[in-house]
Amino acid sequence: MLVQKYRDMLSGKSVIRQLSEFAAARGNEIGYENVFDYSLGNPSVPVPQEFTDAMVRMLTSENSNILHGYSPSLGISSVREAIAKSLQKRFGISYRMENIFMATGAAGALAHAIRLVTEPGDEVLTFAPFFPEYHPYVELAGAVLKVVPPNTETFQINFAAFEEMLTDKVMAVLINTPNNPSGVVYSADTLSELSRLLKLKSREYGHDIYLISDEPYREIIFEGVEAPCVAAFYDNTIMCYSFSKSLSLPGERIGYVAIGPACKDAEDMINMCGQISRGIGHNCPPSIIQLAVAEVVDKTAELSVYETNMKLIYNELTELGFTCVKPGGTFYIFPKALEEDSIEFCQKALKYDLVLVPADTFGAPGFFRMAYCIDTDKVKRSLPMLRKFVQENYR
Amino acid sequence: MLVQKYRDMLSGKSVIRQLSEFAAARGNEIGYENVFDYSLGNPSVPVPQEFTDAMVRMLTSENSNILHGYSPSLGISSVREAIAKSLQKRFGISYRMENIFMATGAAGALAHAIRLVTEPGDEVLTFAPFFPEYHPYVELAGAVLKVVPPNTETFQINFAAFEEMLTDKVMAVLINTPNNPSGVVYSADTLSELSRLLKLKSREYGHDIYLISDEPYREIIFEGVEAPCVAAFYDNTIMCYSFSKSLSLPGERIGYVAIGPACKDAEDMINMCGQISRGIGHNCPPSIIQLAVAEVVDKTAELSVYETNMKLIYNELTELGFTCVKPGGTFYIFPKALEEDSIEFCQKALKYDLVLVPADTFGAPGFFRMAYCIDTDKVKRSLPMLRKFVQENYR
Repeated sequence: MLVQKYRDMLSGKSVIRQLSEFAAARGNEIGYENVFDYSLGNPSVPVPQEFTDAMVRMLTSENSNILHGYSPSLGISSVREAIAKSLQKRFGISYRMENIFMATGAAGALAHAIRLVTEPGDEVLTFAPFFPEYHPYVELAGAVLKVVPPNTETFQINFAAFEEMLTDKVMAVLINTPNNPSGVVYSADTLSELSRLLKLKSREYGHDIYLISDEPYREIIFEGVEAPCVAAFYDNTIMCYSFSKSLSLPGERIGYVAIGPACKDAEDMINMCGQISRGIGHNCPPSIIQLAVAEVVDKTAELSVYETNMKLIYNELTELGFTCVKPGGTFYIFPKALEEDSIEFCQKALKYDLVLVPADTFGAPGFFRMAYCIDTDKVKRSLPMLRKFVQENYR
Repeated sequence: MLVQKYRDMLSGKSVIRQLSEFAAARGNEIGYENVFDYSLGNPSVPVPQEFTDAMVRMLTSENSNILHGYSPSLGISSVREAIAKSLQKRFGISYRMENIFMATGAAGALAHAIRLVTEPGDEVLTFAPFFPEYHPYVELAGAVLKVVPPNTETFQINFAAFEEMLTDKVMAVLINTPNNPSGVVYSADTLSELSRLLKLKSREYGHDIYLISDEPYREIIFEGVEAPCVAAFYDNTIMCYSFSKSLSLPGERIGYVAIGPACKDAEDMINMCGQISRGIGHNCPPSIIQLAVAEVVDKTAELSVYETNMKLIYNELTELGFTCVKPGGTFYIFPKALEEDSIEFCQKALKYDLVLVPADTFGAPGFFRMAYCIDTDKVKRSLPMLRKFVQENYR
C-alpha cells in the first residue's frame, strides 16, 4: 500500500513550476532570451573563482579516501570551526564550533530545526508573505503551520494579528528575513518587538518558544539598508543558513544550523540534530563541498547585479503606478497587481512574454512576485514590454 | 520544549563509535599503524581516477551556474538515464529514467523507501544479522522494525521464523545482500523462496508487501560467488543503492532509489519520492556529484584488495578453530566468538590492540564483526596477534 498523503500531493502542481514550464516551452518557440522569465529564484551570478579553485586543488592534491571520506555526523570539525569564527567576527555573538551543525542547504537545516522543537500537533507560526515550501517542511514533520496575515503596507510583521495567534500551542516561530517573496528586511524595531513578545509569552506559557530564522538571503542586502542579525535579539534563535544564494550554488546543498550560544541547552540541541539526521536519511552534506565552502566562508559571489536589477524594475513599476514596497535585499520584488485577482493579472502578462508569479500561495493574494536574478540586459529589454502590458490592459 | 525522543537518543552511545574512539586514542599512544582497527566500514581503496578527472574537467570548463544549479527534484535527467541504462544492461531488467530517483546515499534512499510504503505503526521486517541503523531509519519514520532471528549456520534467511512473523501488519521487508555484517550473499534459492512467500502473503492479506533491497555492497563480490539481482525475483522491489563503497566516496552522499519497472505504479512511486523529499529536507544529492558519478556509472574502485584481505583472515580464523561462514562479498566477516559473551571476548581482544565489534547490536549475540577495509599489510601484521590472543585466552 503506497502512502496516500504523498500520492495526494502529486496532483497539486506548483504555480511556480507551471509558469517556469510555460517559460521553457515559450522559449523553444521564440528563443528563451526573449522570454522575460521572472518566475524562478535561481542565482545567475557566477560562483566565486576561489570556490572552484579550492575544489580543484583538493581534487588534484589530496588523498582521495580522506577527501571523500565520511563526515562526522555533525559536520567536519574544521568546517564548523570556520563558520563559528566567521559568525562570531561578523555579528559579535560568541558562536563556537559546538553551536554549528552542517546541513544540506536551508531545507535540510529547517528539517532539523522543526523536528528539534515540535512534537506532532504543535503549532509553528510564520508571517505572510512566506515561502510556500514551509507548508510541507512543517506539516510533513507532523506539526501545524499557521500563517499570520501580512502587513501589506510595509511587509514588516503584523503584530496585532501575531499576538492573537501566539497561543500556548505555538512552539516555534519561523521567519525569513531578507524575505522571499517581499524582498523586505526586518528592521531592528520589528525584531525587538518580536523578541519582546516571544519572551513575554514564553514566560506566560511556561515553555520556550523558539525562533527559527531562515536566512538564505542574508548576504544580499542593498545600499543603505540595515540588516540586523536576528540571533542578536533573541537567545532561543535557531539560525538556518544556506550558501545557495551567497555563493550561487543551490544545487550543491550546503548550509548549516547555528544555535545561539545563549540558548539553553545549545550544545545538546546540536547533538540532537545529529540524531534527527539518522531518521531522515540526511547524514551530512557532501564532504568536499563542506571543505570548499569553509575556504570561502567570508566571500560571496558578485551580488551587486541584483541591486542594479532591483532599481531598474522598482523605478519602472512606481512610474507605472504600481504600489510596491522597495526591497531591502534578496532578488525579489513584490508589487500589488493592477486588478484584484493577481492570477488573472499574471495570466494576461504571459501574452507579453512576461512571466510573473501570483502571490496567492505566498499568503498575500492580490500581489505578485518577480524574481530578478536574471541578466540586467534582459531586465532592460523587459521594461518596455511591462509598460505596454500595463497600458494596453489597465489604462 | 526540545523533543524528548531525540534527547533520549543522546545517551545511547554506539558500540562501534566507542570502539573506534578507543582505536584512535590507542593510536595516539602507539601509532595508529599498530592498532589493528577492524571497527569501521570505511572504504580504503582510492577513488577511481576517472571520477576525479570528471570533477576537475567540469569545474574548469563548465558554466558555474549551470554546473552548480538546482537539480530537478527527482535528480538530473541525464544522470537518471545513465543509471537506468546501466541497470538495464547489467541485469536485463527494463529500467527507464522514470524508475530512478537520485538520493543522498543509501541512507537517503532508505528514508524515502520506508516513507513510501509505511504508515505510522506499520511493521517492517528485517533479518538478523542486520545493520543497526535500520532501527532509527524505520522507527523515526513512524513504523515498527521487527527483526527475524538469524540462521546462524549459513546467515541465509531463517524462513521458519520469517513466515511466523510475516503477519498482515507487515508492509515491507528490508534486506541487505551482500550483507553487513555477515558478508554473506543471498543465494538464488533464498531470493526465490523469499519472493514466493511475499507473493503468497500479499495475496492472502490483500495488500502489496514491498521488498526494500539495501545494496551498497553490490559491487564487492568475491570470486566464484553468484550474486543474483534481487529485483529479478520480485516485482515490488525498491532497490536502494549507494556509490559509497563501489567508488570509495562515502562522504559524498550519492545513491539512488530504483523501483522495479514491473512494480505497479512504479512511476508514481518515483514522483512520490519527490514529495517525500519536501518533508525531510532532502532536495537531491549535490548536482556536481550526480554529474560525476554518471560518468563512471559502470566503473568501480579497485576492490580486489578486500578479497585478498578476506582470504587471509578467513584462513587464519578457521585454522584457529573459529566457526565462520565464508563471506561472498563486502568487506566484513562475522565469526562466532570463542566464549558465549562476545562483548567480553572483544574486550579481551583490545589488550592485543585488536579492535573487533561484538554483534549484539547486529541481532546476533555471540558473534563479532571484523571490517577488513584496511591495508593488507596491516591485516598480515594482525594475524600473529590474533593467534596470540586466542592461544593465551582460549587454549
